Amino acid sequence: MSKYVYSFGNGTADGDGQMKDVLGGKGAGLAEMSRAGAPVPPGFTISTEVCNIFFQNKGAVPDEIETQVDEGLALLESRLGKKLGDAADPLLLSVRSGAKFSMPGMMNTILNLGLNDKTTEGLVAKTGNARFAYDCYRRFIQMFGEVALNIDMAKFDEAFDARKHKAKVKLDTELTAEDLKAIIADYLKVVKKETKKDFPQDAKEQLKLARNAVFGSWWTPKATYYRKMEKIPDDLGTAANVQAMVFGNMGDDCCTGVGFTRDPGSGEKVFYGEFLVNAQGEDVVSGIRTPQPISQLKDWNAEVYDQLVTITSSLEKHYKDMQDFEFTVQEGKLYMLQTRNGKRTGPAAVRVAVEMEKEGLIDAKTAVLRVAPNQLDQLLHPVFDPASLKKLVKLTTGIDASPGAAVGRVAFSAEDAVVLAEKGPVILLRKETTPDDIQGMDVARGILTAVGGKSSHAAVVARGMGRPCVVGAGAISISERNKIATVEVGGKTVTVNEGDWISIDGTTGAVYQGQADTKDPDPNSPTFATFMKMADKFRGKFGVRANADIPRDAKVAVSFGAEGIGLCRTEHMFFAEDRIAHMQAMILANNEKDRRKALAKLLPMQRRDFAGLFTAMDGLPVVIRTIDPPLHEFLPKREELMVDIAVLPYADIKKKRELVSKYANFGVDVKTLKTVLPALLHRVEELHEFNPMLGLRGCRLGVLYPEITEMQARAIFEAAVQVAKKGKKVLPEVMIPLIGGVKELANQKKIVVDVATEVLAKADMKKLHYMVGTMIEIPRAALTAGEVATEAEFFSFGTNDLTQTTMGLSRDDYTKFQREYEDKKIFTSDPFGVLDQEGVGKLVKMAVDAGRATRPDLEVGICGEHGGEPSSVAFCYRIGMDYVSCSPYRVPIARLAAAQAAISGDGSESSRTA
Amino acid sequence: MSKYVYSFGNGTADGDGQMKDVLGGKGAGLAEMSRAGAPVPPGFTISTEVCNIFFQNKGAVPDEIETQVDEGLALLESRLGKKLGDAADPLLLSVRSGAKFSMPGMMNTILNLGLNDKTTEGLVAKTGNARFAYDCYRRFIQMFGEVALNIDMAKFDEAFDARKHKAKVKLDTELTAEDLKAIIADYLKVVKKETKKDFPQDAKEQLKLARNAVFGSWWTPKATYYRKMEKIPDDLGTAANVQAMVFGNMGDDCCTGVGFTRDPGSGEKVFYGEFLVNAQGEDVVSGIRTPQPISQLKDWNAEVYDQLVTITSSLEKHYKDMQDFEFTVQEGKLYMLQTRNGKRTGPAAVRVAVEMEKEGLIDAKTAVLRVAPNQLDQLLHPVFDPASLKKLVKLTTGIDASPGAAVGRVAFSAEDAVVLAEKGPVILLRKETTPDDIQGMDVARGILTAVGGKSSHAAVVARGMGRPCVVGAGAISISERNKIATVEVGGKTVTVNEGDWISIDGTTGAVYQGQADTKDPDPNSPTFATFMKMADKFRGKFGVRANADIPRDAKVAVSFGAEGIGLCRTEHMFFAEDRIAHMQAMILANNEKDRRKALAKLLPMQRRDFAGLFTAMDGLPVVIRTIDPPLHEFLPKREELMVDIAVLPYADIKKKRELVSKYANFGVDVKTLKTVLPALLHRVEELHEFNPMLGLRGCRLGVLYPEITEMQARAIFEAAVQVAKKGKKVLPEVMIPLIGGVKELANQKKIVVDVATEVLAKADMKKLHYMVGTMIEIPRAALTAGEVATEAEFFSFGTNDLTQTTMGLSRDDYTKFQREYEDKKIFTSDPFGVLDQEGVGKLVKMAVDAGRATRPDLEVGICGEHGGEPSSVAFCYRIGMDYVSCSPYRVPIARLAAAQAAISGDGSESSRTA
Repeated sequence: MSKYVYSFGNGTADGDGQMKDVLGGKGAGLAEMSRAGAPVPPGFTISTEVCNIFFQNKGAVPDEIETQVDEGLALLESRLGKKLGDAADPLLLSVRSGAKFSMPGMMNTILNLGLNDKTTEGLVAKTGNARFAYDCYRRFIQMFGEVALNIDMAKFDEAFDARKHKAKVKLDTELTAEDLKAIIADYLKVVKKETKKDFPQDAKEQLKLARNAVFGSWWTPKATYYRKMEKIPDDLGTAANVQAMVFGNMGDDCCTGVGFTRDPGSGEKVFYGEFLVNAQGEDVVSGIRTPQPISQLKDWNAEVYDQLVTITSSLEKHYKDMQDFEFTVQEGKLYMLQTRNGKRTGPAAVRVAVEMEKEGLIDAKTAVLRVAPNQLDQLLHPVFDPASLKKLVKLTTGIDASPGAAVGRVAFSAEDAVVLAEKGPVILLRKETTPDDIQGMDVARGILTAVGGKSSHAAVVARGMGRPCVVGAGAISISERNKIATVEVGGKTVTVNEGDWISIDGTTGAVYQGQADTKDPDPNSPTFATFMKMADKFRGKFGVRANADIPRDAKVAVSFGAEGIGLCRTEHMFFAEDRIAHMQAMILANNEKDRRKALAKLLPMQRRDFAGLFTAMDGLPVVIRTIDPPLHEFLPKREELMVDIAVLPYADIKKKRELVSKYANFGVDVKTLKTVLPALLHRVEELHEFNPMLGLRGCRLGVLYPEITEMQARAIFEAAVQVAKKGKKVLPEVMIPLIGGVKELANQKKIVVDVATEVLAKADMKKLHYMVGTMIEIPRAALTAGEVATEAEFFSFGTNDLTQTTMGLSRDDYTKFQREYEDKKIFTSDPFGVLDQEGVGKLVKMAVDAGRATRPDLEVGICGEHGGEPSSVAFCYRIGMDYVSCSPYRVPIARLAAAQAAISGDGSESSRTA
Repeated sequence: MSKYVYSFGNGTADGDGQMKDVLGGKGAGLAEMSRAGAPVPPGFTISTEVCNIFFQNKGAVPDEIETQVDEGLALLESRLGKKLGDAADPLLLSVRSGAKFSMPGMMNTILNLGLNDKTTEGLVAKTGNARFAYDCYRRFIQMFGEVALNIDMAKFDEAFDARKHKAKVKLDTELTAEDLKAIIADYLKVVKKETKKDFPQDAKEQLKLARNAVFGSWWTPKATYYRKMEKIPDDLGTAANVQAMVFGNMGDDCCTGVGFTRDPGSGEKVFYGEFLVNAQGEDVVSGIRTPQPISQLKDWNAEVYDQLVTITSSLEKHYKDMQDFEFTVQEGKLYMLQTRNGKRTGPAAVRVAVEMEKEGLIDAKTAVLRVAPNQLDQLLHPVFDPASLKKLVKLTTGIDASPGAAVGRVAFSAEDAVVLAEKGPVILLRKETTPDDIQGMDVARGILTAVGGKSSHAAVVARGMGRPCVVGAGAISISERNKIATVEVGGKTVTVNEGDWISIDGTTGAVYQGQADTKDPDPNSPTFATFMKMADKFRGKFGVRANADIPRDAKVAVSFGAEGIGLCRTEHMFFAEDRIAHMQAMILANNEKDRRKALAKLLPMQRRDFAGLFTAMDGLPVVIRTIDPPLHEFLPKREELMVDIAVLPYADIKKKRELVSKYANFGVDVKTLKTVLPALLHRVEELHEFNPMLGLRGCRLGVLYPEITEMQARAIFEAAVQVAKKGKKVLPEVMIPLIGGVKELANQKKIVVDVATEVLAKADMKKLHYMVGTMIEIPRAALTAGEVATEAEFFSFGTNDLTQTTMGLSRDDYTKFQREYEDKKIFTSDPFGVLDQEGVGKLVKMAVDAGRATRPDLEVGICGEHGGEPSSVAFCYRIGMDYVSCSPYRVPIARLAAAQAAISGDGSESSRTA
């Protein structure tokens, strides 16, 4: 018979910390803590498997499992010498969710289970604290009613508020035991009215319903959304943890708190956390009361404090990772309620990994695996330029909850944030956030709350997302309904409306009115450098290059550790203001002679560009792609021209002057408008395409107009000669785009090699090493890669276009149905963000294998945007590519992803913090 | 040492008829005829290999080969007892091209080689016919000058005409021996002037130059174009046939002629051909003089006639195919100059194959292989509707040279034909055609000439192309320069200008003014039916279906032998006038409810369509594809809307009324134009796509708007029930288009199956068999075909789109560079006409194999246009598809191609007539 229920407590446990799949993170932590002798209230965990069985059976739980639950409960009762539903001395239970991966606040919890009309009286008698007992029952009915009986929370709130009004009190704490008793009666009526049934008095029935409600919360919209965002599989299910209640709210010798063994924001090795006296856990997490720093626990109860430090630091050693724990002190006695590996910011992840390795707690491999590659993003994004901050009004300083700088327009609700985010960056400004705000937080650039501490919902979620976040900015008064906030600054009231710009610094907690300037981060901080050095050791020969078109980007790339340029898009240079007119003249030319004339003007400019790149990359390879985009991209838009021509007969002189200025590059004046514009439209029509993505572009341009390829090759090799003569090492790799097979490559390669031979001979530099290769971005090129490799000295996979063609999916158009495809699980992720390994990846692997079979020393890389996405980098590593190339700012991420792939053979699983 | 020169003559030969690769078609025929004892003038063939060596060596021929040529010449001389260049009794030679595949008139020939100032006098003495001898020398200088010395033909013509003028004669035949002698002197001066050298008097040098000129003519533009058109590889090269001259022009006991052992137009078993008394071969082929029918040869010389019949019919038996032969009678003695398998029209090919099989000359397999599948096109294209002819003026009746009816606008030159053909159908009207007209003939729908017979250039080439052709329409006077033609009809002069419509009937020779109506051909003629039945036996289970959207097309398809519908495009029905408004309402709907309302109106219409199809296809499978095209195709064009909106403020009432009528479907009046049009544009903009081919279409529409798929499924199954209840057998196969993987298919399949289950249950027809499958037209679907087949009950390859995506090539746009790609040999054929087996085909094969591995009984077919192209059909057969589907008129072609593939394992080679 399978085991579905795992007991823990009294220094022992059925399960252990490794069994997260079965017990969930919380259950595994409780079992492990119990085994380690930590003071854990006894209980049992109903496994995640039961959750899946529950859904398969449409909400029914087989008898054999119910029997195991009964046995677990019996053991618990015997351990505490109390019985569930015992009117004299009732056992009270908590029932909590707990999945394999932490989903903070996303699922349901029920506390104080076991109370009913009779046991409450027993609790009154036993504790001698009627107010406490009634408050417990009151809270239980409300929580159970909402979670297990699906009653609208507002119904309870109304009853509560009505009673408060009647009692003429303002604060909940002012209510007497009698008031609470009356509220209980009201609540029971609410239950009866809403469910047409009495509130369940049978404690065992309560337990069953609570367990089922916990399972059921796996599929709430917010939980589903969170899993999608965090890429947590839907079929894991949650465990249900049933545990004896302990109370942090039985009086002033009680408290509850949460903490970390190190600072989850910075990674500094300090005991870190918060607690609230006479409170329950929810009060801390919800951010309703602002808690005290954990250092003050020492003053409150030194013995408990020392015990907590000892226990948690031994847990950290045990788990070999930073712990995120929860505790409660009931009547002076410490209970550990939870421990798990703590979520942390990118900077913290790096620092903790580096320091733990130094401390000898973990080895270098483990340290490298400890940082999710995307977390590095937080170390690499801009910070505020201090100079620009001087010009702004500083509104207040809150609590620095998640580091990084963010600038955006204010939104006062998650819904508004989603709408505003479509138009530009947004800062979500809320009194406090709740799990319902998850989508708004996801789209926001930064999060600012008026209340709550570092462990509040806003802080925890923002850190997980890597979003800058400031919490507890109590100086700000917010009316979410009126979409307005006010702050007193230097005696004046500053008003912030929806859509106003603000700037927040999650590293310092500072909040500014207006838009601050941002500054590039320092990629060379000692901790970061140590970490990357450690990672690079595992990466071996697998290279990381950057996509860069201009020397400035190339320099940034080198500073981030790029080992070459994997993609220089030469045409980007043609869009520059001083060049586009020549480019347009080239396109409008009717014959080769005129085309060459225009190209001759572009030649010195391109040569200068390439010389700059070669100089910046001294000794590192530079992959230069010949012209790629359709020519009409350089001309005025067809439909604009049509409209301008259509209204021309009605245009007054002002409008005509406007048009003359708009089409200035085409040598037009007020009188010639009516002949020049139609002629221009004629050429635009000739170049017009129904599917430009599949049209006249890439090498097709070079085949049709060989003189373009010739000019570009000349610019490349003349620049190479120029720079090499100055004593720099130059390694050009000329890349032909969009080939469908070997013949196009051979055609273009001949042009390049002929020019190179001529230029190098003339400069007496015949030995200058260069390569000619191709981009693989059309399925046919991949399918015939064996033949392509007879001509290609290197392949670079253009997985943006290869994804478009392989999936028949236009990157510019697919957003129309992207969400529907994600909701219906047709896309498990955005195929332009994460390489589709099953489809596109299969083709890539086939091509690599076929290419290498023809030419064993074929250099193979990737230059699509997937080159900076961790799971895609791991894939590239696994199939034996030589390098990935990505945007300069993602170079460290790619380096780390590659190192992790080297260590584990697959970086994807290890990069998720469980 | 390799053998490069093959002698023949005197009843023996070095080579034989099988050696076409080495000897070319003509050389192999001469060798074979010589071996068979036919009276062939002796000679030798310089192999095709030498031609390739000649080009590799840049025009030089290695000594070892020259030695073999000398030896061949020596043998020839000894066989005839004459010597080349012997002033007393000169040996005269012809040097003719001859490639593996016949290229009539495309390459060079030189006759009378060996004549010079001295040998000509010897010939005068020997023949006693000074006029003949001088005329021979005159012709030789002219031909040699033009072909071997590259002198413009006009230079000789000028000299000739000047002398004629001087002699005051009109006809060439009126010139005396003295006149001709003077012309020779003039010609020699032309040569001296144009080449700065004397005309070569050394006969061996003449031979070398002539041979090289023959080789060189392999690469003339017309030969290159012809090879491209006929798909003859460029690297085959031509042989050079050196042969003793015989003269059909030595007097009235001489003649020359060509013939066929059966009628190459109809296939009828009659001795067929033409001859000209006292003429050379060129006179017959060029069409300058209209020759006599070969039946009259009997009257001219019965002995020769009988000998010719005996020889050619034994050659037919020898080759087991219809022979196309050339002969010359010199002073009463018959010489065979050439024999080869004759080119023939489609109807002739079918009839010859069927009758030869009946005669026992060939077996059924050979008979089936004898007809190129595309030749059937000629049997399947429309003929004139006699009723419509009654309304037209019949201009004349010429010679029926290539069957079939054609209607088009008149062009008077090949160049004009190319230009006019871009705008519509063209009839090329020429006095006579020359090989330079080849491109104009290719683009024309039909060819009409004023002179020439059935063996004229126009007739031969047109039959090869399958173009309707009428020749020798001598009643028509043509001024090609003035682009005008006139005919006397019933005493009146009818004028035909460039661009005027005419109709020609190549089967009857009739020529009409104006546009005749055409009628469907009869696919059930007994010969054709016999042939197709013979072919079908070999095809086995491999099926041929048709693409048809409406019952009328379905009926045509069945009459052509279609075994089902392989593709019904349901959306074509939505474009009908009575439906488009509902379709537009559906697209403009803002919510599901309104969409469903519009769909409900379309439902009964679709149901009616499907019922019609099911009825027509009683018992045969019908593959119905769910909606495929992007929705914006149903709405007004974006740029038109933009322009209309831009000019609206300036529009007068007339223009406004025009707009109201244009946008009538959108419920607009003069007043609401300015609000409705922008709103419409807004929706059009929403649907606008940069690359519609890769956008929101196919199953993506069904995923986004499941109610569309639902409506279509309902229409399909309600129609199926309706028709089945009438006692017909219904086999629906519902096909989901444009899937990228199994998930989209599963999503859409569920909708279809749910509806089917409901509809069939309601009708109590649960056992009605249907299938749900998918179109494979996206590379990713092919790459993941193994998983796709877990859901798909059938695959149908949409190779149009699969070619677009696999090659990254937009069918609507690639014509911009198609010609350049063909000229540069990047495309060996149009990938949308002939399946790219190396690239796209590889993917198709992978998918078939993977699909069958998952589901061994997976039904696999093709519905792209390649399904009717013979080499692609053969490919589909080879990789194990179950069927091909093509347009109704190509069904017989596909049936034959499949049969040939079954016989030979590859229909492509066998289907070319050598």
